[in-house]
Amino acid sequence: CIWPHTFNFDLTLDNLLWMLDFVGKAKWDAWKSLGSVSQDARQQYVDLIDSLLAAEGPAVAAQPTGSAATFDTLLVSTEDNITTIRLNRPQKKNAITVEMYNEVIKALEQAGKDDSVITVITGSGDFYCSGNDLTNFTKIPEGGIEQMAKDAGELLREFVKAFIDFPKPLVAVVNGPAVGVSVTLLGLFEIVYATERATFHTPFSQLGQSPEGCSSYTFPKIMGNAKASEMLLFNKKLSAVQACAQGLVTEVFPDSSFQTEVATRLKAYAKLPRNSLALSKQLIRGTEKERLHTVNDQEVERLVERWLSDECMQAIMSFFQAKAKL
Amino acid sequence: CIWPHTFNFDLTLDNLLWMLDFVGKAKWDAWKSLGSVSQDARQQYVDLIDSLLAAEGPAVAAQPTGSAATFDTLLVSTEDNITTIRLNRPQKKNAITVEMYNEVIKALEQAGKDDSVITVITGSGDFYCSGNDLTNFTKIPEGGIEQMAKDAGELLREFVKAFIDFPKPLVAVVNGPAVGVSVTLLGLFEIVYATERATFHTPFSQLGQSPEGCSSYTFPKIMGNAKASEMLLFNKKLSAVQACAQGLVTEVFPDSSFQTEVATRLKAYAKLPRNSLALSKQLIRGTEKERLHTVNDQEVERLVERWLSDECMQAIMSFFQAKAKL
Amino acid sequence: CIWPHTFNFDLTLDNLLWMLDFVGKAKWDAWKSLGSVSQDARQQYVDLIDSLLAAEGPAVAAQPTGSAATFDTLLVSTEDNITTIRLNRPQKKNAITVEMYNEVIKALEQAGKDDSVITVITGSGDFYCSGNDLTNFTKIPEGGIEQMAKDAGELLREFVKAFIDFPKPLVAVVNGPAVGVSVTLLGLFEIVYATERATFHTPFSQLGQSPEGCSSYTFPKIMGNAKASEMLLFNKKLSAVQACAQGLVTEVFPDSSFQTEVATRLKAYAKLPRNSLALSKQLIRGTEKERLHTVNDQEVERLVERWLSDECMQAIMSFFQAKAKL
Repeated sequence: CIWPHTFNFDLTLDNLLWMLDFVGKAKWDAWKSLGSVSQDARQQYVDLIDSLLAAEGPAVAAQPTGSAATFDTLLVSTEDNITTIRLNRPQKKNAITVEMYNEVIKALEQAGKDDSVITVITGSGDFYCSGNDLTNFTKIPEGGIEQMAKDAGELLREFVKAFIDFPKPLVAVVNGPAVGVSVTLLGLFEIVYATERATFHTPFSQLGQSPEGCSSYTFPKIMGNAKASEMLLFNKKLSAVQACAQGLVTEVFPDSSFQTEVATRLKAYAKLPRNSLALSKQLIRGTEKERLHTVNDQEVERLVERWLSDECMQAIMSFFQAKAKL
Repeated sequence: CIWPHTFNFDLTLDNLLWMLDFVGKAKWDAWKSLGSVSQDARQQYVDLIDSLLAAEGPAVAAQPTGSAATFDTLLVSTEDNITTIRLNRPQKKNAITVEMYNEVIKALEQAGKDDSVITVITGSGDFYCSGNDLTNFTKIPEGGIEQMAKDAGELLREFVKAFIDFPKPLVAVVNGPAVGVSVTLLGLFEIVYATERATFHTPFSQLGQSPEGCSSYTFPKIMGNAKASEMLLFNKKLSAVQACAQGLVTEVFPDSSFQTEVATRLKAYAKLPRNSLALSKQLIRGTEKERLHTVNDQEVERLVERWLSDECMQAIMSFFQAKAKL
Repeated sequence: CIWPHTFNFDLTLDNLLWMLDFVGKAKWDAWKSLGSVSQDARQQYVDLIDSLLAAEGPAVAAQPTGSAATFDTLLVSTEDNITTIRLNRPQKKNAITVEMYNEVIKALEQAGKDDSVITVITGSGDFYCSGNDLTNFTKIPEGGIEQMAKDAGELLREFVKAFIDFPKPLVAVVNGPAVGVSVTLLGLFEIVYATERATFHTPFSQLGQSPEGCSSYTFPKIMGNAKASEMLLFNKKLSAVQACAQGLVTEVFPDSSFQTEVATRLKAYAKLPRNSLALSKQLIRGTEKERLHTVNDQEVERLVERWLSDECMQAIMSFFQAKAKL
């Protein structure tokens, strides 16, 4: 991979991917013809597309024995009253494909009904999740790019809805950097445990987009607008310690003992009375559930408009041009 | 007393008491017959009940001279424009009996109408308040255990309502550990001053219960869900410094100077214009008052359901079994 | 000036000014006749009024070249996609006159429509803003003091409304102490950068008044009631570091590098996609816009009542009496 491990690298594997299909497929020609785009930028773009479309390597973790292996992009297992949904595309930093979106929705639906007491979401490998990866939108549907944006919006809406409606305590075990929608969703979790190595980054405006995952409501509620806007409008990347100080994260652990300490906590939690936990969560979230659904709808509507805007296209081109000058 | 001064001891004097009547009276036989309960556990249970029902000793602080001594469980006095409501069962760590619930409601009603500028709630002795103590539910009413749960719920609802509707600034002077409903109510106070020795503990789920005191709404608002759920769902006990960092407490003072420093602050506050303070408080709380009443109703409804659930009964039995193995 | 640079000095130049017209004009005689007011207090009052009404000195910063110089109390300029509205009465610590209220409303209206990406509000000189300065209410209108209070309320309402409705990201560059409405409005900004020298003070109750600028809603949302009440009811003055810890301020900078560091940030922000920022802000604020307007209306209504109350008058007299004893 030609991209350095920097701020911009995260962008590449996150929101860029969400956009590249629209740009790559609908406006590729227009973009190529821009005189100001250097040869290097074009080559990097092509390389990037190639790398994105490359078949996945064999590094995917094996499905745990004893679990119903019905997922391709996730490892889902239930043990000690804990259902764990593990994003399992470590070589892609657990970027979320269309398939993974659908599988997470399905896994949450099952976890909501199984015998477990709490449900955990975590990632395989060094990353928690690098955000959206919609390279699977390979065909422009009959409705054209407008239909594609609408379909992507609907998928996102259903995905976020599955978190809003989830009936049991949700725990995020943030095992590494988190980007985009994997960060914005954290406001819908009950507990967020993070390794000190984790970072939290929502670079929406940099690519002409807007917040999702109910973060336009949950982030100001959690940390106030003066902190939330820094993240949601101005692309501030938080360290784990900063995210904890601002209330987005429950507790930060040293990386060396992260998995062990979190496992101890979760095992204790999962021994607590199941109904008491579920009903208490529903009591707490019930006061704002209707509002969360409304917020989700508004965020998706705005985002679909954004995807189809010239500004959003231009933002991506500018990003590539800036990269080309490095 | 046979219970060590630990985490579990707080539980004993808090939520356990709320539950023991239902368990002790309605399911005592069933519980005794459980083969897995050790002799020690049974003996400890009997000892506990005995100690709870023992007549109160003479250690109750004397009613301050000059005040209208109309309360048995409280010391209520007005001086320097400050009405102080002091929970006065120090030998029971100020656990709230049915009588105390009713007396606090009455004292708040009077304080709301008197000439004072601010109203203070504090505790006698080393504890602020160890939560509910419903050993006064000594007779199962005609309606059976369902009626008893309903009555207890109604009492709690009226108690919390008295705080929601209180028209003047409310100051909590947290002179020691606080447990259960005495913690959850803090979201309805204007100022919370705590000694460094104070702790804040809401162990609901451990005994199969759910949050009250409007905490299902106020706690997420104050500290965000990632911190609030740790307390309300997973029984995290906060130190005074932690509670202050999370916005539940206004300021923490060294124990040695706590009473002196707080008294100085309060005297200064009580010299401020009375109506300005009351109307400003009502302005701030007015935007959410209707919602607070709805939340209170929902919390009580859920809690009554919980009290009558098998899971809640089982949780208490498990607690005793765990104690018996120590 | 005979007033020392202390806590009380800020009061003098802030809320006092808001009140002095009503007191000075309508109840001046009654106040003078109070036997308990010392000669010194009366003399200081007269001196203060004189100093307030003195013509402004020549120290006003020059209008930047190239900008449309249509404002008398502001410096407004647009550069690098940033529109800056600078309060420009440094010799009065940027206290807000009736003219300045109207000019800020107008400047915000223009900035909302111009080509800039973000809008900045800051102050000339060492202060950010010392709050209200209504010495321009020089004539009691035909409707009497009631009409005067109503007019002042309407002006405040329109002023706050201009911030609620502002469509682009708003950045406060708090270059020094901030008092009164300049503090309460901060909850309506996206970013608040402060020099370490800044302080944040809302001494409403001390003069018998009540909160405005939507702070009765935004402050409890940002920092919880236990912290918000300390400011809004009990006149606590926060340092920049405290205000940042409580979420009112985004970030604090050393005074020596404040302007340079903030300029670097803002230039970077202003290069981000304009519509993405504006639409994201509107998405975030949209969920509470209707509520903010309601809160603004209620706050103004309450404040107008306060201005006409005897308690408010008495509070100012007590303030002067206390000063006289120094």
